[in-house]
Amino acid sequence: MAKTTSLQQLAVGIDIGGTGTKFGIVDRHGNILFSGEISSRNHSEVEGFIDELHGVLYDMIEQAGGPGRIKGIGVGAPNGNFYSGTVEYAPNLPWKGIIPFAKMLEEKFKLPVVLTNDANAAAIGEMMYGAAQGMKDFIMITLGTGVGSGIVANGKLIYGHDGFAGELGHTIIIPNGRLHEGTGKLGSLESYASATGVRLTALEMLAKTNEKSILRDIPPKRIDSKKVYEAAMQGDKLAKEVFEFTGQILGLALANFVMFSSPEAIILFGGLTKSGELILKPTRESMEINLLKVFQNKVKILVSHLREADAAILGASALVWEMKTA
Amino acid sequence: MAKTTSLQQLAVGIDIGGTGTKFGIVDRHGNILFSGEISSRNHSEVEGFIDELHGVLYDMIEQAGGPGRIKGIGVGAPNGNFYSGTVEYAPNLPWKGIIPFAKMLEEKFKLPVVLTNDANAAAIGEMMYGAAQGMKDFIMITLGTGVGSGIVANGKLIYGHDGFAGELGHTIIIPNGRLHEGTGKLGSLESYASATGVRLTALEMLAKTNEKSILRDIPPKRIDSKKVYEAAMQGDKLAKEVFEFTGQILGLALANFVMFSSPEAIILFGGLTKSGELILKPTRESMEINLLKVFQNKVKILVSHLREADAAILGASALVWEMKTA
Repeated sequence: MAKTTSLQQLAVGIDIGGTGTKFGIVDRHGNILFSGEISSRNHSEVEGFIDELHGVLYDMIEQAGGPGRIKGIGVGAPNGNFYSGTVEYAPNLPWKGIIPFAKMLEEKFKLPVVLTNDANAAAIGEMMYGAAQGMKDFIMITLGTGVGSGIVANGKLIYGHDGFAGELGHTIIIPNGRLHEGTGKLGSLESYASATGVRLTALEMLAKTNEKSILRDIPPKRIDSKKVYEAAMQGDKLAKEVFEFTGQILGLALANFVMFSSPEAIILFGGLTKSGELILKPTRESMEINLLKVFQNKVKILVSHLREADAAILGASALVWEMKTA
Repeated sequence: MAKTTSLQQLAVGIDIGGTGTKFGIVDRHGNILFSGEISSRNHSEVEGFIDELHGVLYDMIEQAGGPGRIKGIGVGAPNGNFYSGTVEYAPNLPWKGIIPFAKMLEEKFKLPVVLTNDANAAAIGEMMYGAAQGMKDFIMITLGTGVGSGIVANGKLIYGHDGFAGELGHTIIIPNGRLHEGTGKLGSLESYASATGVRLTALEMLAKTNEKSILRDIPPKRIDSKKVYEAAMQGDKLAKEVFEFTGQILGLALANFVMFSSPEAIILFGGLTKSGELILKPTRESMEINLLKVFQNKVKILVSHLREADAAILGASALVWEMKTA
C-alpha cells in the first residue's frame, strides 16, 4: 500500500473518557499543534455533546488551516467498535445503548471519521510514536480503574470478526475467584490488576490478617491504590504484599498472553504503572515462571513513556494515518 | 498480492509426526493425487531420514509430472518454526537439538520449502479446504495426546515475533493446578484437556471417591481416554463426570481465547473430539458462562470434518499456496 498522503496533512484525534473528552490536531510526526478538552458529562443526549464538541473543535480546525488540511478524525472511546463505528453500552458514558458515533461526527464535520476503543487507539499511538515503534507484534495493556488492552500481530491491530477483540482485562485468571461487580464474572484479570483490584486486595488482606499496617489508620472507604502505594513506599509490609500479589496475578496473565501471540514486548500504561518496580518486579517474575521455556527471557515488559494526556490524543489521531485513502 | 500460480501447479505436503511421516502431492483444490507414509523412527540421524524420504517422494514427484510442476514443499512438524525453518527440541522426534529441516529438504529436493508447526499447518488446511473456509478470524485447537493450536487473525496466521505463537495448550488455566510432566508447569490446559489429561482425571476421580464405575475393573495402567469414553457411552456416571470436568476447563480456556482475538469460530480437531457431545456440551456451556456478554452466543465451536490422515497433508501442502512467489 503506497502512502499517498502528503506531509502537510493533519489529523484530528479525539479521546472520549468517562470524565473528559480530549482532542487535538496532530501532524504526521506526532506533534500536537492544538489541543483542548471538554466535559463528557454536560449533556445527557449525545447530540448536545457533539454540538459542543463541534463548536470548539471546528474553530481549532480553522486555525490549523481549515478542513482541507485535515485527512480525517480519529476517535478512541470506551466500548468503541472499529467495524461499525459505534459506541456500544459504555458503562462510564452518559449516553446509553448503541451510539453511531462515527457516522454522527462525519455528518457534523464533513470529514472521514475512524473510531475504535480507547485501548486499541493507545496501542496504535505506541506503535507510531511510543515504545512500540518498529514492532509488528506487541500487546498494550492499560492498568487504570479497569484493565484495557490492544493487541498488534503481523503489524496489524487484532479486531476479531466483530470488532471486539482484545478484552484481556476480562479473561479469567483465577477460576471462581473474586467477583467483578461490573460484569458479574469471577476471577477476571481486571478484578485484581486494576486500581480497583489493588484497593480490594488491600481491604481483604487487612480483614484476613492481624498484620500491623499504616493502612489500618485510614477509614476503609478512603483506602485506594494511591494510598496503598504510599504505604508501600514507606516500607509498610502489608501494602508491599498487596503489590506482590497483584503482580503475581498480572504476570500469570501476561504469560498466557505471550503463549497466545508471542509478542516482542508488552507495553504497560496507566495509573498502576506509577508504582514502578513495586508491581513490575513480581509481574516479571511471575510471567517468567509461568512461561514455557521457549518464551522465557525474550519478552520485554515496557512502561509507556508517552505523557498520559498526549497519548490519548496521539493514539486517536494515529488511526487516521492508518485509514485507507479513498 | 496477485496470484500468479497457474491451476496446473501442484504442491507437496509433508506431515512429520512422532510415529509416522505422511506426505502427498496435492492440487490447488485440495485433491490429494498421490500419497504415502514412512516411519519417523527408522533413523537416529535426520540425514538418514531425509534420504529415505527423498527416495520415496522423488519417485512420486516424477509420476506427478516432475519437479517442474511442483510449486514447493510444505512441511508441518512438531516445534516447527516458520521464520527459521527449523524444528527445535521436539520431544517426540528422534532427532535432538535444532534441526534446519527446511534448508536440508531444499538442498535435497532443489525445491522451495516452507515449514511451520503441525497445528499451524492444520489451521491453514482448515482455512483452505475445511471448516474455516472464508473465515478471517478463527482458532484451531487440536485435542490429541497433547493440545496444539493455530490462530488466524485478519486472515493471517499469528506467528508472533519469533515464530512460536499459538501455544494455547500451555496457557495456565488452573493456577497451581495439575503438574504437566513434560513442561514442569502447573495447571496448563494440556494437562487437563488432552487424551493424557482425561486419563489422569479419571484416575484422580477413581482415587478420590468410592463411586461405582466400570473403570474400576480395568487395571489403572490400561485406563486411557478411549476406555473412559467407552465407559461413558455405557452410562458410567464417573466416566461422564470426567468429560464434564474436562469440558468445563476447556470451555473456560476457550472463553479466554475468545476475549483475546474474538474469532468467528473455534475449530476442534483430534482424538478427543470423537467423544462428541460428551465433551462438547460442557465445553460450550462453560465457554458461554465465562464470556463477557458482548461475546456470548456468537462464537461457533466446530469439529473439523477433514479426515485426520488427509488433513495433515492438506494443511502442509496449503502452506505452499501461501508462499510468496519469487
